[in-house]
Amino acid sequence: MSIDSSMASAVTSTSQTGNLPAGHPLRTRIADAVHAVRSTTPLAQSFTNFVTINLVANAQLAAGGTAAMSYLPDDVLDIAAICGATYINVGTLLPFYKDALADIARGLHDQGKPWVLDPVAAGLGATRTAILESFRDVPPTIVRGNASEIIVLDRMWGLTDTDAAADDGTRPAGVESVDEVDSAIPAARRLARHLAAHSPNGQGAVAVSGAIDFITDGTHDYRLPGGSALMTKITGAGCSLGGVVGTYLAVADPLTAAMAASLHFNRAGEIAEAAAHGPGSFQTEFLDALWNVTAEQIADSTILQ
Amino acid sequence: MSIDSSMASAVTSTSQTGNLPAGHPLRTRIADAVHAVRSTTPLAQSFTNFVTINLVANAQLAAGGTAAMSYLPDDVLDIAAICGATYINVGTLLPFYKDALADIARGLHDQGKPWVLDPVAAGLGATRTAILESFRDVPPTIVRGNASEIIVLDRMWGLTDTDAAADDGTRPAGVESVDEVDSAIPAARRLARHLAAHSPNGQGAVAVSGAIDFITDGTHDYRLPGGSALMTKITGAGCSLGGVVGTYLAVADPLTAAMAASLHFNRAGEIAEAAAHGPGSFQTEFLDALWNVTAEQIADSTILQ
Amino acid sequence: MSIDSSMASAVTSTSQTGNLPAGHPLRTRIADAVHAVRSTTPLAQSFTNFVTINLVANAQLAAGGTAAMSYLPDDVLDIAAICGATYINVGTLLPFYKDALADIARGLHDQGKPWVLDPVAAGLGATRTAILESFRDVPPTIVRGNASEIIVLDRMWGLTDTDAAADDGTRPAGVESVDEVDSAIPAARRLARHLAAHSPNGQGAVAVSGAIDFITDGTHDYRLPGGSALMTKITGAGCSLGGVVGTYLAVADPLTAAMAASLHFNRAGEIAEAAAHGPGSFQTEFLDALWNVTAEQIADSTILQ
Repeated sequence: MSIDSSMASAVTSTSQTGNLPAGHPLRTRIADAVHAVRSTTPLAQSFTNFVTINLVANAQLAAGGTAAMSYLPDDVLDIAAICGATYINVGTLLPFYKDALADIARGLHDQGKPWVLDPVAAGLGATRTAILESFRDVPPTIVRGNASEIIVLDRMWGLTDTDAAADDGTRPAGVESVDEVDSAIPAARRLARHLAAHSPNGQGAVAVSGAIDFITDGTHDYRLPGGSALMTKITGAGCSLGGVVGTYLAVADPLTAAMAASLHFNRAGEIAEAAAHGPGSFQTEFLDALWNVTAEQIADSTILQ
Repeated sequence: MSIDSSMASAVTSTSQTGNLPAGHPLRTRIADAVHAVRSTTPLAQSFTNFVTINLVANAQLAAGGTAAMSYLPDDVLDIAAICGATYINVGTLLPFYKDALADIARGLHDQGKPWVLDPVAAGLGATRTAILESFRDVPPTIVRGNASEIIVLDRMWGLTDTDAAADDGTRPAGVESVDEVDSAIPAARRLARHLAAHSPNGQGAVAVSGAIDFITDGTHDYRLPGGSALMTKITGAGCSLGGVVGTYLAVADPLTAAMAASLHFNRAGEIAEAAAHGPGSFQTEFLDALWNVTAEQIADSTILQ
Repeated sequence: MSIDSSMASAVTSTSQTGNLPAGHPLRTRIADAVHAVRSTTPLAQSFTNFVTINLVANAQLAAGGTAAMSYLPDDVLDIAAICGATYINVGTLLPFYKDALADIARGLHDQGKPWVLDPVAAGLGATRTAILESFRDVPPTIVRGNASEIIVLDRMWGLTDTDAAADDGTRPAGVESVDEVDSAIPAARRLARHLAAHSPNGQGAVAVSGAIDFITDGTHDYRLPGGSALMTKITGAGCSLGGVVGTYLAVADPLTAAMAASLHFNRAGEIAEAAAHGPGSFQTEFLDALWNVTAEQIADSTILQ
């Protein structure tokens, strides 16, 4: 998707626009993270939905990490002590998750362990709402979701009013969103600052997936164009991205992890689309491309600031 | 499979035989349904088994729809209010499903929402039997299963005696079933009439999958030859067909939905088999073919009446 | 991996070394088992983790068997009465499994039905430990796991002390393991004898998967080189092997079943690796190869004794 600089400026409120320069430290950190995942095969565990759990694990393996999946608080907290990061996805809930996930979030917080939340279908159903509310004061290190999930989570956690003026004022009335991701920008920034404020090392990040991904640590914003429309024609592109964000969080700071995983996915998606004849072959080619894409292809991506 | 007209007549009790004429209104409704799914990407949700849940979602996406999967009554009934149809599959049960599924079926009935039942392994285990019995008076709009599941469900719901004479009388004693699907024809018709009698709009359908699929609305019977034997060498061909019946039920009447989904699957199966080298590549090719097969290929299929 | 005969002798305590001769009765039994699976399509049911359940079923189908998956004791015991073998994998546990699996193991024992255990992540979490301990006195017919799982299970069941001198004495102090599989050899032998002692027909087997698989019935040891490193880059290679061991156990004695399944997987892995471009295409090619590899390719494999 093309985006002209005046509109980008209007909706992002950043004074700089355009592609992040070659050699920028963030590009170096991203390349280092890709190399670190592939050389250390870090373990990131997941508590994730049943629909796409297989793709989450296979995407983590294809990206270079290792996977473990659990639904019991004792398992998850035992593994948390020895793994690099935890990924929690609230897609397909069972009744007992309400207590289990609240206990797990509390335990991860008490252990000071980083984790990634994918607030799938935020706003839907009383059980999911109770679970997401229980995370508010022991929040994840990174949230990855689509625009509406980010907006709902921001409202659910009552962050909307705290600094709405500062953020929403950056968006002129009457300017239509460039795409739906833009509608989540103020919420994403507030969420990222909330995560950072509760994080052991003061860092957090939010990744909003869409036609152009938006990633923020609450202060710095980045837009990542590209990827493939076929990603919406297989189930689990978002869930598996969340899992791979966990893989990267095991070796990098939250902003770098969210950026590296999203860029890794976008480049692999483009490679896969070029070789695919439909959604079946796309998934096969996508896993191959996660494995084969180079750190340079990932780190040299267009990164709009 | 070839079938001579005298035998077809004996087992189906229809006076007409042979391929449905080109331009028949049912063919037009099928073509319209395929176009409607692809142009409106309808949401059909599923409560389905863990084995094949990924393939169900991917088949719905590849056929042109969208998917949501849930196991909580509050989720399912919330989504039912906004989606086109619900698919329930009783393959891999957890203990809490007994109450959950009874509540969901009652809720769908009270909301007047259409749904598809896949009575996997009907007759096996006390929990599954209790669940299927709880559906009797708040039944689905469509049942899709194999011959033995249809026969068991018909008996379990006590439909066998109500008009057994009328139906079973059409089948001369001593005539062996042409294939096992034929053995389920009287049960399928009774089930379809039971579904229609409880349906808000008086319509229901039953699809019996086999070497030649049999589909009935209780009055009109159709046989659909074709498909691929490799469909029995991947797990979830039947489950994913049930999910895609749900996708079509979101845009069409029950008979058209059952027909369109079954024909879509059979044509895609044939295309996939021609390109496959075993069950692994068959699944990949099958998802691609669901995506690529045309509405004309589907609607122009052989439809034996 | 190469292995010199003096070291093999030291760690295996067998007086014979080298490849099992052509025409050896075990090779005939393996070939017969492959033919029997493909000609009788035996049903082996599974109670297995959610991550890889689809691959387990698809691998069983591609190897020539049929699959059924359940989580309810009533289902599992009903199916056990009519199927050839049961596969239990403790990968992703739900709270209710603790009682369910203890009941199932007891029921299988009381029915005299053969089953395969995959003790995934043995030693992790109180729930998993309670489940594995409950199997001690009603044990499976075959255990398949990696080296550390076999070692943990041996210790957990208190088998270590019973004949440690006899077994551990075969391993000279100071000799490093040739690979990690070797470190599990004494535990594997003790486990196999424990399984055999509790088996209705006095037979049991343990398969330790690794770069070179180690398989023992407690008396005879075999090493199976080969396979593909890409098997560690998809999720579920081990789980699906466990499922296919179940398929073979439906038609063969425990040692032959463990051997045939492991050789079937190794040869298919090699064929798939030669055709694959990454982990996505590897999985597709692997299922095709399970389907296409011949009984001769399997039975003529290198089998080091």
